[in-house]
Amino acid sequence: MLHVVIMAGGSGTRFWPASRAAQPKQLLQLAGPRTLLQATVDRLDGLVPRESILVVTAERLLPAVRQQLPEVPESGLVGEPCKRDTAPCIGLAALLVARHDPDATLAVMPSDHVIDPAAAFRDAIRQAAALVDEDPARLVTFGIKPTYPAEGFGYIQQGQRLPGAGAAVHRVARFKEKPPAAVAAEYLAAGTYLWNAGIFVWKARTIIAALAERQPECLAHLHAIVAAWDGPDRATVFAREFAAIRGISIDYAVLEHAHDVLVVEAPFGWDDLGGWSAVARQRGADADGNTVVGRHLAIDSVRTIIHADGDHLVVTMGLEDMLVVHTADATLVADRSHEESVRRVVAELEKRGWREFL
Amino acid sequence: MLHVVIMAGGSGTRFWPASRAAQPKQLLQLAGPRTLLQATVDRLDGLVPRESILVVTAERLLPAVRQQLPEVPESGLVGEPCKRDTAPCIGLAALLVARHDPDATLAVMPSDHVIDPAAAFRDAIRQAAALVDEDPARLVTFGIKPTYPAEGFGYIQQGQRLPGAGAAVHRVARFKEKPPAAVAAEYLAAGTYLWNAGIFVWKARTIIAALAERQPECLAHLHAIVAAWDGPDRATVFAREFAAIRGISIDYAVLEHAHDVLVVEAPFGWDDLGGWSAVARQRGADADGNTVVGRHLAIDSVRTIIHADGDHLVVTMGLEDMLVVHTADATLVADRSHEESVRRVVAELEKRGWREFL
Repeated sequence: MLHVVIMAGGSGTRFWPASRAAQPKQLLQLAGPRTLLQATVDRLDGLVPRESILVVTAERLLPAVRQQLPEVPESGLVGEPCKRDTAPCIGLAALLVARHDPDATLAVMPSDHVIDPAAAFRDAIRQAAALVDEDPARLVTFGIKPTYPAEGFGYIQQGQRLPGAGAAVHRVARFKEKPPAAVAAEYLAAGTYLWNAGIFVWKARTIIAALAERQPECLAHLHAIVAAWDGPDRATVFAREFAAIRGISIDYAVLEHAHDVLVVEAPFGWDDLGGWSAVARQRGADADGNTVVGRHLAIDSVRTIIHADGDHLVVTMGLEDMLVVHTADATLVADRSHEESVRRVVAELEKRGWREFL
Repeated sequence: MLHVVIMAGGSGTRFWPASRAAQPKQLLQLAGPRTLLQATVDRLDGLVPRESILVVTAERLLPAVRQQLPEVPESGLVGEPCKRDTAPCIGLAALLVARHDPDATLAVMPSDHVIDPAAAFRDAIRQAAALVDEDPARLVTFGIKPTYPAEGFGYIQQGQRLPGAGAAVHRVARFKEKPPAAVAAEYLAAGTYLWNAGIFVWKARTIIAALAERQPECLAHLHAIVAAWDGPDRATVFAREFAAIRGISIDYAVLEHAHDVLVVEAPFGWDDLGGWSAVARQRGADADGNTVVGRHLAIDSVRTIIHADGDHLVVTMGLEDMLVVHTADATLVADRSHEESVRRVVAELEKRGWREFL
């Protein structure tokens, strides 16, 4: 049976001050009236029942996640006691699902991307699930056709086309780390490299077996956690054993070493929403090129992004290519050419000990 | 005896959103820890007792003025029921003071300028009072030596030097309205034009006589108000009679027609604080040219003015020559080249009916 694992533990800092430690990107209404996490769950309507959704987030985010997803049963919410990257997260989810459904197929996906249309996404997941049903040893990834020489994504080099599976499915020749600009340009020109979207489909037992081979210590800790899952010591054991795991991504831990990896070229629109300009792309702009969320008055302002919480009024005058983000206790005003540096703000706040703004 | 009349009814819009209808410029801490009004009163210490200070403001501002000036007796606070420019304001103040001190000398001054040092200011007022004592027909004005060809001020053309009164005292040749740039440049080059600082010294009875001659209707209304001042109908009569007056400035009403007008070149530093750049001049800037009031973190930001109320954090990144003013319910972000247009914001808010932000 198909189950979905949503990874919702991210703590991105690119949207400060809208995003905070207690309210990271996936919990924000960045692209529309639903938060990115809510939109991720909405997108599964008709693909799996809600009982087959497992949301893995950080323990401290559980109350907020619970509030945003009243339709997901409590047993579908897992709060990691600390951050350990994607391999332990995915391994734990696979073990938890396999307890009740040993032949489960898992679709694993991030909670903070924009994907549209949802129907194409669901079809693609079904196609991948069929590939896995056909050969349970397969690990299926999704790749996005690059539209520019991005330096911020990992790439997947397409190998041989999988016979009889349609034009979109290839064996993976190699995973490539985030490349420098010149290399990214080569990838784009070659036409055989896709962005790694971090969306995976595989059998729970297959990924467990892969972890057993490549990350046996990690898997041992995860087994200890699952053994205590339904007993009184769940929290204690979870905290102790999970903290003992070395954090590692599923790409490093498994995918780069695996032989039977396929990549499906995504038939859906995708945006990782890596910053405010991506938000502006999603939301569109008015005739002056301004993208506005909240109450705003523009005077001689162009190509400016405004994001204001609540009823606060933001007035901009004579601005070009600027970013203004207003929240109850903090405001960011930045030139859009500095968008990539928003993380520096968070680093600087940490350095100064201004924890109330993190 | 010397009395001081402080005109505190201004409703400037150049400092929006820091300044509002209910909290105009003179009530703000723009240049330091004391508001401009408080600093105006502080400056009089040693010149006149507090019982000799009359603050004329707008009726709706009375509670705020009372709170800011606990040292001024209630009888020293007058709240105009509507706005009628400076001549009615000054005429009323002269009549009120003359009731108890028919030979009173009045020093009339705005409440929203920066003047420093205070001792030089007090000396200059004493010098002007002596000129008036010498010849009670005189009307004394103060002029500021221009430092640039300002288009935003009225000018006073110096005439013949007053014999025996020192180099700083001249007869007024002519009052000049706010000039266009080329004319302002001529004035500056000529060296005989001063900015009109709106500070006046004269006998109460002299200005009353001048109003009687030039503005008899205005004076009749003011007499009616003063006749009812100590009775039960003060508020009713004040509201009715003051509203019936045609608003006119003391310059138009009296000064431009008077023959015995002197101008004293001010021996003190003066700034009318006409906008945020003037505030920055007063407050000074840090090594990056930034002027900051409130909690601020600057990343790659230069020549930027930040004014944030309360504990709100403003972070600026990659800004040059910008202005950021944050208040509880509204924020202005502007290029400093648009500083003169801040009034447009208020006009636009009025047009849209967003009265809660005015």
